[in-house]
Amino acid sequence: MTASDDRTGIFDTGLGKTAANYQPLTPIGFIERAAAVYPDRPSVIHGARRYTWAETYARSRRLASALLRAGIRPGETVAIMGANTPEMYEAHFGVPMTGAVLNTLNVRLDANAICFCLEHGEARVLITDTEFSETVKAALAALNRHITVIDIVDSEAQLAESAGERLSDTDYEGFLAGGDPAFDWSSPDDEWRAISLNYTSGTTGNPKGVVYHHRGAYLNAIGNILAWGMSGHPVYLWTLPMFHCNGWCFTWTLAALAGTSVCLRKVTAANIFGALADHDVTHFSGAPIVMNMIVNATETERRAFDPPVQVMTAAAAPPAATLEAMQKAGFTVTHAYGLTETYGPAVVCAWHDAWDGLSIDQQAAKKSRQGVRYHVLHGLSVRDPDTLEPVPEDGEAIGEIMFRGNVVMKGYLKNPDASEDAFRGGWFHSGDLGVMHPDGYLQVKDRSKDIIISGGENISSIEVEDVLYKHPAVLAVAVVAKPDKTWGETPVAFVELKEGAAPVSEDALIDFCRARLAHFKCPRTVVLAPLPKTSTGKIQKFRLREAAGKM
Amino acid sequence: MTASDDRTGIFDTGLGKTAANYQPLTPIGFIERAAAVYPDRPSVIHGARRYTWAETYARSRRLASALLRAGIRPGETVAIMGANTPEMYEAHFGVPMTGAVLNTLNVRLDANAICFCLEHGEARVLITDTEFSETVKAALAALNRHITVIDIVDSEAQLAESAGERLSDTDYEGFLAGGDPAFDWSSPDDEWRAISLNYTSGTTGNPKGVVYHHRGAYLNAIGNILAWGMSGHPVYLWTLPMFHCNGWCFTWTLAALAGTSVCLRKVTAANIFGALADHDVTHFSGAPIVMNMIVNATETERRAFDPPVQVMTAAAAPPAATLEAMQKAGFTVTHAYGLTETYGPAVVCAWHDAWDGLSIDQQAAKKSRQGVRYHVLHGLSVRDPDTLEPVPEDGEAIGEIMFRGNVVMKGYLKNPDASEDAFRGGWFHSGDLGVMHPDGYLQVKDRSKDIIISGGENISSIEVEDVLYKHPAVLAVAVVAKPDKTWGETPVAFVELKEGAAPVSEDALIDFCRARLAHFKCPRTVVLAPLPKTSTGKIQKFRLREAAGKM
Repeated sequence: MTASDDRTGIFDTGLGKTAANYQPLTPIGFIERAAAVYPDRPSVIHGARRYTWAETYARSRRLASALLRAGIRPGETVAIMGANTPEMYEAHFGVPMTGAVLNTLNVRLDANAICFCLEHGEARVLITDTEFSETVKAALAALNRHITVIDIVDSEAQLAESAGERLSDTDYEGFLAGGDPAFDWSSPDDEWRAISLNYTSGTTGNPKGVVYHHRGAYLNAIGNILAWGMSGHPVYLWTLPMFHCNGWCFTWTLAALAGTSVCLRKVTAANIFGALADHDVTHFSGAPIVMNMIVNATETERRAFDPPVQVMTAAAAPPAATLEAMQKAGFTVTHAYGLTETYGPAVVCAWHDAWDGLSIDQQAAKKSRQGVRYHVLHGLSVRDPDTLEPVPEDGEAIGEIMFRGNVVMKGYLKNPDASEDAFRGGWFHSGDLGVMHPDGYLQVKDRSKDIIISGGENISSIEVEDVLYKHPAVLAVAVVAKPDKTWGETPVAFVELKEGAAPVSEDALIDFCRARLAHFKCPRTVVLAPLPKTSTGKIQKFRLREAAGKM
Repeated sequence: MTASDDRTGIFDTGLGKTAANYQPLTPIGFIERAAAVYPDRPSVIHGARRYTWAETYARSRRLASALLRAGIRPGETVAIMGANTPEMYEAHFGVPMTGAVLNTLNVRLDANAICFCLEHGEARVLITDTEFSETVKAALAALNRHITVIDIVDSEAQLAESAGERLSDTDYEGFLAGGDPAFDWSSPDDEWRAISLNYTSGTTGNPKGVVYHHRGAYLNAIGNILAWGMSGHPVYLWTLPMFHCNGWCFTWTLAALAGTSVCLRKVTAANIFGALADHDVTHFSGAPIVMNMIVNATETERRAFDPPVQVMTAAAAPPAATLEAMQKAGFTVTHAYGLTETYGPAVVCAWHDAWDGLSIDQQAAKKSRQGVRYHVLHGLSVRDPDTLEPVPEDGEAIGEIMFRGNVVMKGYLKNPDASEDAFRGGWFHSGDLGVMHPDGYLQVKDRSKDIIISGGENISSIEVEDVLYKHPAVLAVAVVAKPDKTWGETPVAFVELKEGAAPVSEDALIDFCRARLAHFKCPRTVVLAPLPKTSTGKIQKFRLREAAGKM
């Protein structure tokens, strides 16, 4: 790997790699072990459907075998447009068992974007849940070539009346029936081989295809276990879409632990509490919107369950009020952070026993920080994006958040310029801005493009949002820049109020900010309206930025 | 790695390794994280000495820096003759930080054997605890070259009156004082680089030098966490010598978890209970002899502690009586198995919830099996040593136990023939005999050389020993072959009785066996006497075999 590799001491002579002492790392091996050691344990629960690890393994092998019989070859792409169902879970094993690459599509994308992904990713097979047939049909019509389509016809979707039309003569169960449940798959010949392809839903331009390899997927699957202190056989509720960074690699984590996946086609408060009560859920993860649902659930939606349930949340920092309500309701919240490019979470707000004694506000302040590197991440740093010098660890100096290590993507597909740019200087440049606290804990301040520069002063949109989240009537908030002749930019706040909350005026919210923030940071304008959100619950700031631009 | 490596699809183009997305795996990174995230947590406790992770990291960096200043270069060997002390722990990080290889010496070896290890391993530096000065002095006198010696002068050894004479002008603390606590070490340039050298205490001929690499040490450190379900910050009591497979890789595991090492210079029942009571120990591991000590402890040796304490035991299966006594006393026993060549334990008797309802005898029967592969081991199999065909998984057919994967050693140092022989056919041949049960759980039946062949029938010495262990008066037992003119071999049992147990005759023990075993398997001779043991509590069967040969 480096020049010194040709060192020839006594420890480098006659001690090479053999089949006995070297195997490429791959998370697929976890399912073989789960099925061998715990064949009868529940692997996947989806409504009335139940599978054991022996069954999920056999179904994954059937899928691999049937894909090979259908002509799929190593290094080719199999796309899936799926909800959180058993088929989606099985694809995370069956597809890479063939040496092919799994491309999980974001089900909220429109037909044009889906068409782009299929075209750019060169998918040869598309497995698609009939819930999304309308979009997929349009995408396929726009696609300039033939692609093999396999329909997922989910009985639970039929029950939920969310099933759409069939697009193919082949359905998933029929396809599996043609596969061999004892198929003798083999590990990749190199752990650097691609395992999956995840398109980032960029705010402008075409999506970029983030490529993961077997080594990184293996390591971050374990990284989740170490960072979250998981042991035993967790029962994991899928509020997080599996298409999102392969479910933050928890698809593979659950196989390593022989845990249970509880599927959830539709994420609602009632469905979440139902799963907690019926299946003894121990863990789930997702965007803050899921916590909002839980905290704001009605009495009829709530069900009793065995606390504590562990919750890993990412994207935005949990506001103190949400955190307190979650703790009182029996949830222990862990804050994590990462990007599609880092296999999902690669940073965790590692807790200290000493913090248990703090007030809830102080605990929320600790938890609002994104934290420290995963065990499996080599480096996490806040640096000047040009000089690559680390900023002072004072909690004040803002720089770009950078990652390095084995859980940073293989690169962007067919985009060497973007890969090179993202990796310049030996660090992955996240595009997020943050500060490093004196205790080595990272705090995200903003996306580069979300920072507001007013009169030459930087305003962190997150800082303003955090204040507004403290207002009892506020459900969700997003602060963006509005062009201003005098100041360059000024902050404008878009605010969604809680249903049934006491009415509050725009001016009252501005006053609320002025009582708690430097005045130059306070929004000049507040807009009360529902916020546009992505499928994963992220607020679509680019839309609000457009709106602010027209004000 | 293979011919197909030159595949050039879209996923293999422009997606190579960079400093941003690839780092060689190494367990040394764990201590950097522990010190950064948990600087004030206790790392090592040794009598009156206490260290935090910040301190242990700084001391390890001092050691690395001082070694480099003393002329050590990457790929050279640093040997240590140490008890379970902070210095020994620090050497597991400080030495590999320089790129050098740590050779932990078995402190029970005699001067000739130590001289052999220093000679064969080409050690340039020897760090040695004054407790072992007598042996080391003789070994150095026999060694035909100069070696830098650093004395560990441990205040706890002084208190215990086990300190011997100084062999050098340099003591460990003085040596550290010359090192840089902020030394900027770097990861190995290749994860295949050697990290440590462990000589196997073979029963005949010269010891073989088992070489570990950074990749395997990293993976088995994590493998322990996954196999044992460790989470949080364990408090680990060192009853197991750190010189034994680098403490089964728990040296590095504890850094990953920012746990606490409780050192123990002398393993006695009183010291064990003292540590449990004083330091809230959560985990320890070791040979069955340690469990015997605990079970047979006197009332004055016992102290109250917070149950349950997790115990990982290897070498021999825990007898039901021991298991029951341990459970009643507040210990949860996990059975593991491995060899020096597999980084210590690589097989674990993974427990099933359903087994909780079994009787203690049935549980003991389950636990008597060595179990299934670690998550980080790729393959575990029982095969015909010649044809390499797997034996039927029927719990009856005996074959050789074989391993393959990343936690199999790099090979034997300067012994390519032995490495090649051990790895023939792409499997590591353990030399142990076993059966595979229908549920995929391995059970060790014997070392190849320990099997007794009587009238053409194989007798497993372990099977006979298991029966004798059920006798209430038996503390320890070893069954070996005695040459016999008629039968070829017959079994002879060496038995050590419990102190204070009711007297039992040799004939009574033979009758006890005949009531429970096929008669041809029963010992013809029983010898009542203390058993010779190695430093790790293993009974030295080769000595008993010698004795039996002279009967």
